[in-house]
Amino acid sequence: MSAAAPIVLLTDFGDSDWFVGSMKGVLLGISPESRVVDLCHQVAPGDIAAGSFILEAAFDSFPPGTVFCCVIDPGVGTERAVLVALANSQIVVAPDNGLLSGILDQHPEAGLYRASNASYFREMISDTFHGRDIFAPLAAHLARGIKASDCGTPFHQEPIRLPGPPPSFSDGHARGRVVYVDRFGNLITNLQLAALDHAFPGRATSHWKLRVKNVTLIGLSKSYGHARHGELLFYRGSTDRIEIAENMGNAALTLAVNTGDSVDLFV
Amino acid sequence: MSAAAPIVLLTDFGDSDWFVGSMKGVLLGISPESRVVDLCHQVAPGDIAAGSFILEAAFDSFPPGTVFCCVIDPGVGTERAVLVALANSQIVVAPDNGLLSGILDQHPEAGLYRASNASYFREMISDTFHGRDIFAPLAAHLARGIKASDCGTPFHQEPIRLPGPPPSFSDGHARGRVVYVDRFGNLITNLQLAALDHAFPGRATSHWKLRVKNVTLIGLSKSYGHARHGELLFYRGSTDRIEIAENMGNAALTLAVNTGDSVDLFV
Amino acid sequence: MSAAAPIVLLTDFGDSDWFVGSMKGVLLGISPESRVVDLCHQVAPGDIAAGSFILEAAFDSFPPGTVFCCVIDPGVGTERAVLVALANSQIVVAPDNGLLSGILDQHPEAGLYRASNASYFREMISDTFHGRDIFAPLAAHLARGIKASDCGTPFHQEPIRLPGPPPSFSDGHARGRVVYVDRFGNLITNLQLAALDHAFPGRATSHWKLRVKNVTLIGLSKSYGHARHGELLFYRGSTDRIEIAENMGNAALTLAVNTGDSVDLFV
Repeated sequence: MSAAAPIVLLTDFGDSDWFVGSMKGVLLGISPESRVVDLCHQVAPGDIAAGSFILEAAFDSFPPGTVFCCVIDPGVGTERAVLVALANSQIVVAPDNGLLSGILDQHPEAGLYRASNASYFREMISDTFHGRDIFAPLAAHLARGIKASDCGTPFHQEPIRLPGPPPSFSDGHARGRVVYVDRFGNLITNLQLAALDHAFPGRATSHWKLRVKNVTLIGLSKSYGHARHGELLFYRGSTDRIEIAENMGNAALTLAVNTGDSVDLFV
Repeated sequence: MSAAAPIVLLTDFGDSDWFVGSMKGVLLGISPESRVVDLCHQVAPGDIAAGSFILEAAFDSFPPGTVFCCVIDPGVGTERAVLVALANSQIVVAPDNGLLSGILDQHPEAGLYRASNASYFREMISDTFHGRDIFAPLAAHLARGIKASDCGTPFHQEPIRLPGPPPSFSDGHARGRVVYVDRFGNLITNLQLAALDHAFPGRATSHWKLRVKNVTLIGLSKSYGHARHGELLFYRGSTDRIEIAENMGNAALTLAVNTGDSVDLFV
Repeated sequence: MSAAAPIVLLTDFGDSDWFVGSMKGVLLGISPESRVVDLCHQVAPGDIAAGSFILEAAFDSFPPGTVFCCVIDPGVGTERAVLVALANSQIVVAPDNGLLSGILDQHPEAGLYRASNASYFREMISDTFHGRDIFAPLAAHLARGIKASDCGTPFHQEPIRLPGPPPSFSDGHARGRVVYVDRFGNLITNLQLAALDHAFPGRATSHWKLRVKNVTLIGLSKSYGHARHGELLFYRGSTDRIEIAENMGNAALTLAVNTGDSVDLFV
């Protein structure tokens, strides 16, 4: 394997302009041996919550030492900090605006640095494209082996976190909310199976009832194909969270549910 | 060239979520030296026929030894088999649901194995994301040099094929159908020039008549620019099939033709 | 670093078909060590002006020796030339249809060759997919080190340029036009700060007035976040041009301005 770490890009730049291409040009100039992977560029402009979830969902699929370069940054050009986070043998570069929330929820022990050492930035820094001029060069230098502590000083403030309550658990009842809607219209909640198992040990999942909007579904399913065509189901998703889907359909459209809507589980 | 084979990804995962990113993370962890190429991720959810055509259309452009990792898989989590196909010095991993139809049409001699050896899967296998947990690790191990026979046992059943009749040829007449509509609105048929040359040797293509819907076009054209602005034409496409286009326009919209509609050629 | 140069792809092929994938297959076969970067594939079909701007905007972000393979080519299959341009230590392959305009504006000294040496093309050349059969193999051979002069003969004609007037400067007034609208609805003009500084030395940018449609904006801003939510602003963009944006909004929609509309700056 090459000595340079892989670099993963997550932005809201879309794919209709040159923004991601320019970032890759900068990466190539500094760390030509790094594999560069597009995690996602279709986050809606400024949708920090979606970006945070996507980062968290894919994080553990990458090998140790991967550098994540995350630019959903409506505050570009203001005084918001650029952070370097060390979590679970991975490195994440992101603005301090909530984008790290998902990672910090899972890895509260993460070390944080504020990137201030301009010797790892581009020579000319625009006020509107820090993805090219700050985030990409920083990520490339990190992929080549500089330490997070070389980038700046420890960040002792509390990083900005996304709003929204965590799930609540009471006797036989869990209340969560939809945190992400994927391309298939599947509704991903913040109810993690690990937390449910901990709160309600030993309950038979075939008796679980899930209520979303005015619909109640009974019994945790295994996968889409175990429901009938057009039938709604809920199941343990690939990120270990309760998800709601419609087999061969779009649950978000059918139920008119969106991010933030609450979900009740009775076990 | 690196010892690891390139890996080509074909899915219906789109680009708005983390699904393809997670697969690439798994590939990086197992076969970091492999070049990873996105063939297409914008196949409409569950559109196995489009996926089959795209795979067939691009197959021969890749060098020998390429591993294709194909995940259009509405039956994920059910008992459908995962197949490894050896065809023309290439390796294809795909579910047994018709996605291999185009490749098997062109390479009926292909060897087929059913992937069942879990030592080449991810340790934890979700019920809804086999792209990450089964297809990607399998493709990465194949790219690193394991044999198809290491993945499981020979598949002696008849693999599932797409429905739809093959082209028919009678005296001076060929009937086919539109099998794909591309981004430009060009209509790609299943009438291959090689088959037409065989059925009707020596006919002057300038006299050919093509009928689609209630329109008749006369004479095989060379390329778009040989027609007038807004004019319909038919020509030998880049996959050696008869295609119908509108120069600087969208033939699919103009003709209101879609996949499955029949096309008649009189030679 | 590997001996093979990186290859950057710019096309109007979109991402819903196999076209870009096939090109990458050809690149892999000829120059397997080259890093391949997608600059943009979502240029509207045949929009040569947008392609020219995207190429120009990203050009300097890539390291010396990069090969750009540009296929926005509505004239495929006609007698239009395929050009190889040498500019600023970079190599660009593109049809002679105006796509090189932006690069030639910035690098009038660029050397031009007409690619005619079929030994660097694919053996079988279709009439409709020169991206796969001519542009990709040519780019891959250039990335492996052949010289532009190996591809053909010097191009002594005047290459085709995009229409549209350059900016004009009179006493205290510059007139330009919108040349690109990005995904965020930001309006990018052809008024370059370097040219404005040259024409109007020493003017305080806080007094500048910009008029677009029936709106007048006062004072060059630093970045989006320095304007109020929903406020329009103008600023020096990341390509050194005057841009117009709406903080947290879409200026193109708000102003109903599009490519080609004029912009007046009073300094």
